[in-house]
Amino acid sequence: MSRPIVQFWYEFASTYSYPAAMRIEDLAERRGVELRWRPFLLGPIFAQVGWTTSPFNLMPAKGAYMWRDMERICADSGLPFRRPDPFPQNGLKAARIATALASDQVARFSRAVYLAQFGEGWRIDNEAVLATLVTHSGAEAEPILARAASDEIKARLRDSVDEAKGFGIFGAPSVTCADGELFWGNDRLEQALDHALNTHAGG
Amino acid sequence: MSRPIVQFWYEFASTYSYPAAMRIEDLAERRGVELRWRPFLLGPIFAQVGWTTSPFNLMPAKGAYMWRDMERICADSGLPFRRPDPFPQNGLKAARIATALASDQVARFSRAVYLAQFGEGWRIDNEAVLATLVTHSGAEAEPILARAASDEIKARLRDSVDEAKGFGIFGAPSVTCADGELFWGNDRLEQALDHALNTHAGG
Repeated sequence: MSRPIVQFWYEFASTYSYPAAMRIEDLAERRGVELRWRPFLLGPIFAQVGWTTSPFNLMPAKGAYMWRDMERICADSGLPFRRPDPFPQNGLKAARIATALASDQVARFSRAVYLAQFGEGWRIDNEAVLATLVTHSGAEAEPILARAASDEIKARLRDSVDEAKGFGIFGAPSVTCADGELFWGNDRLEQALDHALNTHAGG
Repeated sequence: MSRPIVQFWYEFASTYSYPAAMRIEDLAERRGVELRWRPFLLGPIFAQVGWTTSPFNLMPAKGAYMWRDMERICADSGLPFRRPDPFPQNGLKAARIATALASDQVARFSRAVYLAQFGEGWRIDNEAVLATLVTHSGAEAEPILARAASDEIKARLRDSVDEAKGFGIFGAPSVTCADGELFWGNDRLEQALDHALNTHAGG
C-alpha cells in the first residue's frame, strides 16, 4: 500500500519553522504520511519583492508580535526559546549541509540546528557549531562540510529555491502535497497532512 | 459575577476579518466572554511602513495563497465566498458607520457588510448598499449615514486607529485582552478568548 507524500519546506533562519520542524515528523507518522525534508532559502524570494531582510524587521509592530507569539507557542509545546542575535541569522551554510546530507540524517540535523539557534542562542553560520550538529545527526562532519561547499550542492539548493517558487511558496514553513496544494505556516501543518491523506489515490 | 472582556479589532477590507467576524460572537458566548466590536482602519498603519495597498497585492505569491486559503476556510465553515473586485475595497465609510452605530447594532451591521462584500461581491463604498445594510442592522439609515459623516465620528475612528497602534496592532483581525495581550488572525480567536478567560480576575 503506497503512502501519501508531502514536502516540508523550511528555512533555517525562520522563526515559525522551528516549532514546525520539531513537531511535523510526529504528526506525519501518526497519519502514515511520508515526509520529504526540503531546506530552502527565503532570501532570494524576499528579494523579488525588494525586501533585504526579514519582514519582521521591516514592520516593527509585526516583529514584536511574532516574538511574543513564538514565546507563547514554545511555552505551550515545552520548547526552549530565546531570541537569536542577530536576527535573522544567516542559514545559507546550514541549508547547504542539509541539502548534502542523506535523507535519514537531514531531519535530525535540521532539528539540531533549530534547537541550537532558538533554544541555545548559538550562531548557525559558525563552522564549528555546524560540524558539531552534523556529528549529532550521525554523519561525519569533515566530508559533509566539504561536500556542502561544492558546486553540485550549491546548484541543488538553488534548484530547491526555484522549485519552491514554482509551488508559489513565499514564506516558511510551507508544506506542498502531491496535487500541488500549498499550505503555509506552523498553524497549517495538520491541515496539510490531512489534505495529503484525503486526496491520496494509491492503496 | 463579572465577565472577561475582549476587544475584536477588524477592518472591513480585510479578507481574514470576514470568517473571524462571522464566528467570534458564538465563540465568545460559549466561553462567557464579553465582546467589544472595534472597527478600525489598516491604511494608516500600513502607510507607516510605506505600503500604499494591501500586502497581498504587494507580494503576489502571498496574495495568490491567501485567496486559495480563504476558499478553503469559507468552504470548511459553510460561508459563501467570492473575490471582491477591486481588492482591497475602500472600507472607510463602512468603518465610520460601524463607529456611529449603537453597540447592539454594530455586530449585525458588520457581519452584513462582510457577507455583502465577500459573499455577494457588492461594493461596500456604495452609499445605497451601506444604507441597505444599516437598515438590516436594525437602525434607521438616513440619520446614521449623516452621523457617520460628522466630525465627531471621524475623530472617534481616528482615535480607534491610534488606540490600535498603541496595542501594537499591525493587521486584522486582532483581539486584545484586558491585560494588553494581543492575538492576530482568524487562527488565534480561540486562543485569545481562552486567554481572556484564564487571566480574568473578577468573580
